[in-house]
Parts: sequence; structure tokens; C-alpha cells
Amino acid sequence: MTPGPTQVPESSLLLLARQVSHHRTPEFRRTLAEVIDGLKYVFQTQNDVLILTSSGTGAMEAAVANLVPRGGKAIVLESGKFSERWSELCEAFGVQVVRHQVPWGQPFEARDVASLLRQHADAVAVFTTLQETSTGVGHDIEAIGRVVGPSGALLVVDGISGVGAMPCRTDDWQIDVLVVGGQKALMAPPGLAFLAVSPAAWRQIESIQRPVYYFDLLAYRQAIHKSDTPFTPAIPLIAALAENLRLIREEGLENVWARAELLSRATRAGVEALGLSVFPARPACGMTAVCAPEGIPCDALLKRLDSRFGVKLAGGQGPVKGKIFRIAHLGIIDELDVLSTLAAIELVLVEMGRDVTLGAGVGAASRVMAEAAATGPSV
Amino acid sequence: MTPGPTQVPESSLLLLARQVSHHRTPEFRRTLAEVIDGLKYVFQTQNDVLILTSSGTGAMEAAVANLVPRGGKAIVLESGKFSERWSELCEAFGVQVVRHQVPWGQPFEARDVASLLRQHADAVAVFTTLQETSTGVGHDIEAIGRVVGPSGALLVVDGISGVGAMPCRTDDWQIDVLVVGGQKALMAPPGLAFLAVSPAAWRQIESIQRPVYYFDLLAYRQAIHKSDTPFTPAIPLIAALAENLRLIREEGLENVWARAELLSRATRAGVEALGLSVFPARPACGMTAVCAPEGIPCDALLKRLDSRFGVKLAGGQGPVKGKIFRIAHLGIIDELDVLSTLAAIELVLVEMGRDVTLGAGVGAASRVMAEAAATGPSV
Repeated sequence: MTPGPTQVPESSLLLLARQVSHHRTPEFRRTLAEVIDGLKYVFQTQNDVLILTSSGTGAMEAAVANLVPRGGKAIVLESGKFSERWSELCEAFGVQVVRHQVPWGQPFEARDVASLLRQHADAVAVFTTLQETSTGVGHDIEAIGRVVGPSGALLVVDGISGVGAMPCRTDDWQIDVLVVGGQKALMAPPGLAFLAVSPAAWRQIESIQRPVYYFDLLAYRQAIHKSDTPFTPAIPLIAALAENLRLIREEGLENVWARAELLSRATRAGVEALGLSVFPARPACGMTAVCAPEGIPCDALLKRLDSRFGVKLAGGQGPVKGKIFRIAHLGIIDELDVLSTLAAIELVLVEMGRDVTLGAGVGAASRVMAEAAATGPSV
Repeated sequence: MTPGPTQVPESSLLLLARQVSHHRTPEFRRTLAEVIDGLKYVFQTQNDVLILTSSGTGAMEAAVANLVPRGGKAIVLESGKFSERWSELCEAFGVQVVRHQVPWGQPFEARDVASLLRQHADAVAVFTTLQETSTGVGHDIEAIGRVVGPSGALLVVDGISGVGAMPCRTDDWQIDVLVVGGQKALMAPPGLAFLAVSPAAWRQIESIQRPVYYFDLLAYRQAIHKSDTPFTPAIPLIAALAENLRLIREEGLENVWARAELLSRATRAGVEALGLSVFPARPACGMTAVCAPEGIPCDALLKRLDSRFGVKLAGGQGPVKGKIFRIAHLGIIDELDVLSTLAAIELVLVEMGRDVTLGAGVGAASRVMAEAAATGPSV
């Protein structure tokens, strides 16, 4: 139940066990073309989609190093560990960073972004995050897109853990570069990262000198137009991803989003019924970050959940280490996974001496689910 | 039978089908520590070994970007497509390149390297290649190490396709940075690359400004000392690699080298008995590059081998496209794989109108194998 790497569907695991075939074959080119099609559907884009063999951070680096020349200016919206990574990347590549920081757990306001863009009309790009995995905030990228779009700056969004779990309409929301990871809502083993690149972003990439080779996006574009990759790709991971994208298409993207939204709503109701509070002011759908109960060491709680029930949750990082824990709703996680996680939390809290009504969290979450089943389409 | 991606052993394929576990767990840390141990054995080194999630090119980039500062000078020994990649990488990162070119198919001479080092005493590093996959040349890295070692320049070796198939004694040969890929002789699916970094190389890395983030080797070193990785690693590929390294240790590294050496010797005898000639002047052990028979289009030959027998060989690249084909001896390939490949070549040559004695190639290769079995340890 950690926010990635997520569980891989059984049908994809079986594909991973197949003998590795060569990548310069018609069979692999067909798989690659199918994966690109599926990713365009999940990203809701007609832009070029590229596949890198790297972690999500590799694709973030590719975005920075290809878009902003050394000495160029970028606005980074910081609200947690992963959005801070954009600033670290910019600094590593000699980009001048304008940092806009909001406290961990808080969302960005589009009007603040608009005012930053007026102050820094020379900014090449705005770097931001869909779902900040370190805090569980879901940022309002649609609203941010509406202010960045007309400004002439490029909008770059880290959707590594959010895309596939919550709405992200790349083209409608005017996202110029979307970065996504394979091992979150797309349910592949780690090792793949993706970028969707708009025509405006390509114009910028073509016009500047870029310190890139392995992450040279022009090489990836040239190759993918021939259903190829510039370097040997992670062949079995791509085969597994093809299967996962088939599963997502079968369920329907809007249904996948609705499922994660329901699970996150039910989880929030459940933990609140146990007297715990949700950490982020604007919760994302792919995960729920919960404030650790006062008087109980967070580490001990997570350790006991694991040793007693095999339930693995993630703790906090950086300034919220020991202060929050995080429950994922990514990929194949379903209603009963959420309910059994809440049941485990209840039992462990009681066993650790906390005054909790057993069944209160599960009941509250179940009521949300029952209501959804009664009113909405089945999930 | 292509020089990578190679076949993955069955016991490793089954590990790939296991559910993905989290990487920040004691179990994964144990696997990672075991893999590092195994890689040190295969690389014959006590230096730090680092694991990247990327293709081999990513690790080549890491070597260049971490070792040579912008404006610094490097000597690149070029003899084919992959050694030329060193120069392309240097140029992408603003490194001043001194190119030493030998014709495709020819080896480097250590005395030429010595004279280059005298002319360019300010060169930070010499970039070279163990097995040039595009030509099948095996370079004499031991001799090159003897001249680079005392010069003060760092020796960087692309062992992506060679290491594990032919002797490479990293420490004895004074290799400062060795780059290796997972999907060649190490028999893992593509997606992993490795570096072995000497203390002298670390001193250089620590002393310069480096335009790196995803490939920041200091971050990888800090993490691996705690059996961790700076970014989410390709967990199942590492589990499969652990199994492959156990298999290599079981067979014994010297035996693995001897097997590839025997297979390459037998293959050379086989193709020569068919009237074909071996392309490289100093053949490597991990593969054999063969000159295409005159009068028969190489592409048609390879296509027919595939369609008639399912035998996949690699053609030539760049200036030797259509002029050579390449047979691998990497990983789990054994004597009967080589003999059946030769049998397929014989049949296809006859079917394409060539005057070839059926059985001549297989016989010649078999005689090499029989002799080895009679005189040496069984392989």
C-alpha cells in the first residue's frame, strides 16, 4: 500500500517471465507502437510521447536539460520533496531558479503563479507537480495551466505518481511537458519513464544548445516516429506495460480515475473516524497522507502494521518524517484493500494503547463506498 | 544469437514473474548487497561498484560527465560505432576530444596510446573499449592499462558487451572506470548498467564541477554504501541479475571465460571452413563478426536464417552495414547453439546457390570442441 512501486497485475507478471526477444524486430515495434497509443490515451494527449529507460527522475532531468539553456530562467513551484527536485535539477544544469514555496501539505494558488509570471516574463518554463508524493497534495494543474498557457512560458508537470490515478488532461490543460513514471498508477515494474512533449516545447528544444546525450529528446522523437528507441530499451518492462495499458483501456480511464477518487475519499472518511487527520489541505486521489496519532511513534506504528499484518505503508520524508504516514490508491488497489488496511490500522492502534472503536474506520469508509455504489456506476 | 540483449536463464525469468516488492526493505538491501558482491567478482575489482537504471549508454554518459570537466581534454580511441560514442558523449558535455582512429576491424596499439599521452599530458582520461560490438574486435586493455597507468590520466573502459565473456581484470589492468551492461554476458533483461570506480577516479570526481543529477556518481556511492540506491531501482531486473551472478559463480568465472573463448574459436574455424573470413584482425571472445559472402546480399542471408530456422544474427552497422554479420557467444549460449547456427548457415548458403560442402563448417567447429574436451577441463 506504498505510493510506488505498486503491485504489477498477474497477467503482466507472466509476460515478464517470457524469454527476452530482440528490440529491432517487427514484433517489438508493434508492442512499442501499442504502448505509445495507450500512453497517449492515459495522458489524454496528441503530443509526442517518448519512453526512457530510467526512473522518473531521469525524465525530470530530460525535461530540465532539454528545455532550459544554461543561464536561462525557470520558475519552480515547491511544496515538498519531489517538487524541490525540480530546483535541484535546475541548479545542476546551471539554470537560474525562481523558487515559489508553499508550506508542505499546501497547494499552489494559480493567482500566485500569474503574479510570478508577470514579475519574471523572461522565465522559459514553470515546473510543477500533479500529485506531490511526499505530502499527498493534489495541485490544481488545470488552473495553473490557464495562467501559464497565455504567458509564453512552458508548463512542465511532474505527473510521475499522479497520472493514471487522477484526471490529467495534458492537451486541454495546456501542459507542454508531462513527466510520468511506469511504477506508479501504470503498474509496471520500475525502470520506465515517459514524457509527452508539445509542439511549443519542441520549438524550444530545437532552438537551444542542450548538454544531453542519453536524455536527448530529439533522438527519442526521431526514433519513436519509426517505432524504435535510440538505446536498447527495457524490453520486458515494455511488454508488461502494454498489458497494463490494455487493462486500463478495458476498465476505461474515467472509471480508473473514479475508482482512485472513491478509494481516497473512503480512506479519508475512515482515518477521520479514527480521530486521525488528513495531512494535505487539498488531497490527491492517488494516495492519502495521514497525520501520525499523537503519542504514538509513527515508525513503531508502521513497523507493527507490517510485522502483524504484512501491511506496508510509507512514512514521511524530510521535514514530515515521523509526522505522517502515506496510504496509496494506485494501480490495482481496490475497495477491500482499503478496508483491510483501515482494519489493520484500527487493531494496531488499539494494541498500542489508543482508545479507538474497532470497526469505526472501516464502517465510515464502507459507508462512502455503499453510497457510491448506490448512486454512481459500479467501480 | 545476436550480441545482446541475450537470453535470460530460466531460473531468472521465473524471478521476474514474482510480485514487485518495495526497495526500501531489508530483503531488497540483501539482494542489492549480493549483486554488488557478484559484480565485483565478475569485474575482478575491489573498487566501488554502482548500479544505474539505464542502458549501457547511460553509464558511459555518467563516466564522461562525472570525470571530465567542461573544457577538459580527453583521448578517445575509436575503432567502431560504440567507441565513437565516447567522442559523441564528450562533445555533448563540452569536453575537448583528441580522437585516435584506427580502421573498423583493427585493434589499438599500446605504443600509439603512449605517444598520444606524451603529446597530450593534460588529458584527464583515455576512453576505450574492451569488445567493440560493431566490429568484433577485442582490444588489448591490459597493454593499454600498462601505458595509461603511469601517465596520470584515468583509464575508462567500455566493457558493456565484453565483460563476463572475456578476461577483464579491472584492478590488475589499472582500469579506473569500467562500464558494463546487464543485457550482454550478464544475461539480465536490458535496463541495468554498472560502473566500477577506482579511488583515483573518485578523487577526480570529487574535485570538479559536474553537470549531473540522475547520473551523479557521488549520490550512487553514498547510497550503495548503505545498500541503497538514490532513485527507485529496477527491482525485478536486480533480482534476476542476482540469480545470474549465482550461476556465473557456480560455473566459475574462468570457466565462463574459457567457454566463450572456445565458442569463438570454434565459430571462427567453422566459418573459415565455409570459405568465409572473420572480419576483425584481433577477434573478441563474446562475438564473431564474419565478412558477408561475396555475391550474396547480407540482408537476404540474415532474413532467410531467421525465416527458415529462427536463427537471429545481427548485421553490420554504419560503414560495415551489408558487409558483415555478427554471431554472439554471450551468456548461456553453448556448443550446440554454435554448431546449429553453423549448420543453418551452411544450409542457407547452399539454398542461396553457394557452393558449400554441407557439414564442413560444423565439422571444423566440432573438431575444435573435441580437441578442447580432450585436453582441457570440461566446459
